Amino acid sequence: MTWIHSPESWMLDVVAEALGIDRERVEHLARHRTIRYRVFRGILYASLRREVAGHPEGTVIVFGRGWWRLIPGYPSIQRMVLPSVALPRHFVDKIVVEEKLNGYNVRVALIDDRIIAVTRGGFICPYTTSRLERIMGNQLKDMLRELGPEEHVAAGEVIGLENPYTRYFYPEAPRFGYFVFDVFREGKPLPPGWRDEVTEKHGVPHVPVLGVLDKNDIEGFKKIVERLNQEGREGVIVKDPEYRVPPLKYTTPATNIGDIRYGMRFFMEEGRGFLFSRLLREIFRVYEEGLTGPRLDALALELGRAALQPAIETVKKVAAGDMVYEEFELEFASRSELEEFMDYMQGLGVDLVLVEIREENGLLKTRIRKMKETWLQVRKMLETGLTPID
Amino acid sequence: MTWIHSPESWMLDVVAEALGIDRERVEHLARHRTIRYRVFRGILYASLRREVAGHPEGTVIVFGRGWWRLIPGYPSIQRMVLPSVALPRHFVDKIVVEEKLNGYNVRVALIDDRIIAVTRGGFICPYTTSRLERIMGNQLKDMLRELGPEEHVAAGEVIGLENPYTRYFYPEAPRFGYFVFDVFREGKPLPPGWRDEVTEKHGVPHVPVLGVLDKNDIEGFKKIVERLNQEGREGVIVKDPEYRVPPLKYTTPATNIGDIRYGMRFFMEEGRGFLFSRLLREIFRVYEEGLTGPRLDALALELGRAALQPAIETVKKVAAGDMVYEEFELEFASRSELEEFMDYMQGLGVDLVLVEIREENGLLKTRIRKMKETWLQVRKMLETGLTPID
Repeated sequence: MTWIHSPESWMLDVVAEALGIDRERVEHLARHRTIRYRVFRGILYASLRREVAGHPEGTVIVFGRGWWRLIPGYPSIQRMVLPSVALPRHFVDKIVVEEKLNGYNVRVALIDDRIIAVTRGGFICPYTTSRLERIMGNQLKDMLRELGPEEHVAAGEVIGLENPYTRYFYPEAPRFGYFVFDVFREGKPLPPGWRDEVTEKHGVPHVPVLGVLDKNDIEGFKKIVERLNQEGREGVIVKDPEYRVPPLKYTTPATNIGDIRYGMRFFMEEGRGFLFSRLLREIFRVYEEGLTGPRLDALALELGRAALQPAIETVKKVAAGDMVYEEFELEFASRSELEEFMDYMQGLGVDLVLVEIREENGLLKTRIRKMKETWLQVRKMLETGLTPID
Repeated sequence: MTWIHSPESWMLDVVAEALGIDRERVEHLARHRTIRYRVFRGILYASLRREVAGHPEGTVIVFGRGWWRLIPGYPSIQRMVLPSVALPRHFVDKIVVEEKLNGYNVRVALIDDRIIAVTRGGFICPYTTSRLERIMGNQLKDMLRELGPEEHVAAGEVIGLENPYTRYFYPEAPRFGYFVFDVFREGKPLPPGWRDEVTEKHGVPHVPVLGVLDKNDIEGFKKIVERLNQEGREGVIVKDPEYRVPPLKYTTPATNIGDIRYGMRFFMEEGRGFLFSRLLREIFRVYEEGLTGPRLDALALELGRAALQPAIETVKKVAAGDMVYEEFELEFASRSELEEFMDYMQGLGVDLVLVEIREENGLLKTRIRKMKETWLQVRKMLETGLTPID
């Protein structure tokens, strides 16, 4: 276990200083595990489970010898439901429309000249760190070194099938890719044009920029979204070219329905949370696009199927004695790297089962299953005929 | 306002004694408003907002001169999703299948020879108390007097259109009816046969008993549910004839989908809560009944429409400048009774608007609107194009 359950006095002081709050408050938050202390490969850090004194959830404080480093949590981005209203109202003049990739959000920082990969929740993920190191460690290091590693953090999306969080196939990164969407300087994001320059200079991929439009060009915006929708891609992030106002996001209908379809396989977990939020997006889309009659019915049928079919499949599976899990293919450089990852996930309370391991080109290729709570709950419901949810 | 925000010392002592917990605990719970003190027509009482020391949510302690009276909260009834599994497993031999009416749960007790009507949440509702008094006050009094008013509480469903909580039309009680489903003696429910006898003796209506079956007669059970479904009625409560095990409930598909359709009109409130729970019931019903192909698609379409159409109507309404509310027709004996009710609801944080009042046969007939939070939220979403729910 790499948790530090009883942080020493100086660890509380450092966090108090870094967050600008008093020490008693830190002690209280640490006791309630709102601030959690961990060690990653000899690096001691503290992590915020939720917003504290203006520091967002996922904020990390790294402890050095005589110094500390604050890595702010990635800010949440407001979601549009009516782009035709939100774009002209929110933005200044021009908008940069970037692709929102469907993976997981990772901040990369340089600590003691090593890169660390911090998840949205504020943990240094050993798997992500190692794969990033192998794939583009030097590029990321060069970039952050040149920018000034103490003041800069890169933030981007890890996509592809080989990760333990969000498996989604992209032709441009079928297995594991990283695309930077923001470079932060002292906590402030830098303009997208500038981001493209510095990442390209060092051979670090950035998210695709799909267009720079006038904020009133709703037609142009919708065309971009429609193309993404037809390709089954997630959606867009819209930014001010100078980052004068915060970005906004919008997802394609394919994603909204797809999330429900995917989530309902695990209906006692993801499904439950996905259902209403995705439906809400579609309600406003129908309103904005004026869908009626057979087109509305087609959506209703698709939605109803997405909500029912995967869940029914899961019930049948469990009734037939099968387990319900997600399966990931993960690649490790060594046994110890694999073990470090399994420990890490266990420490986060995630139940993993290693089902296959083989060597290939000096690397370990594994298949790992994440057991789903839905499995246990459905088993119980099938056995008793009763539901825990009224 | 009829809240007592600073209960006196003796009020804490009485509740401590009634609940069998210590006085400090009561003080703490009162400070956090888990125990709330109120006055209803000169009757002082305390009410539990959630379960405390084994006493269910909605438990009420009534204060008299030198005595107190505990009215336990109505216990929650477990829901079946697979009756074919749950019935044989849960019950002993025979089952009594009663109709579950779609209204609101009201406990009636006799205090100082006056009846009080206690809602599920543990408040004495002035409207329900007055209407019950007018409609069947003498019958209820006679029954409770004969049984022994200190040890007995009647529990039943108020149904019909003229109430401020759940408007649902029943031919047998189009405006306001009360049907007893349980009589409690010292907190224990009495067998259904016995309940029928005592209620019938005093002319107090009880819920319809739809059949007494063998617990393995799933076919017989399903026939009853199917008939209710075709009549658009809510569902059933299944009891052991001797109350040796707790009852179970089951609702018809018409109700499950109907709840979604109704709730999605107010999608930021009821809709949000209804969606997943009702879907879950349908998932297991589809599994149990083996629905596939076109029959499953018909359900998917119905479900999708129920989730989308009412919500889209609401968005259009708000966009057109209309308000979103529920409207109730309520009957009062006098102005002061009306005012008492408006105060009561305001004290509970419910925003009501009186839109019509007229006299008819010496009674006041009113139309009252309950403003919905959905209205404000949709207005804001239409104005900003952004959503508060990610």
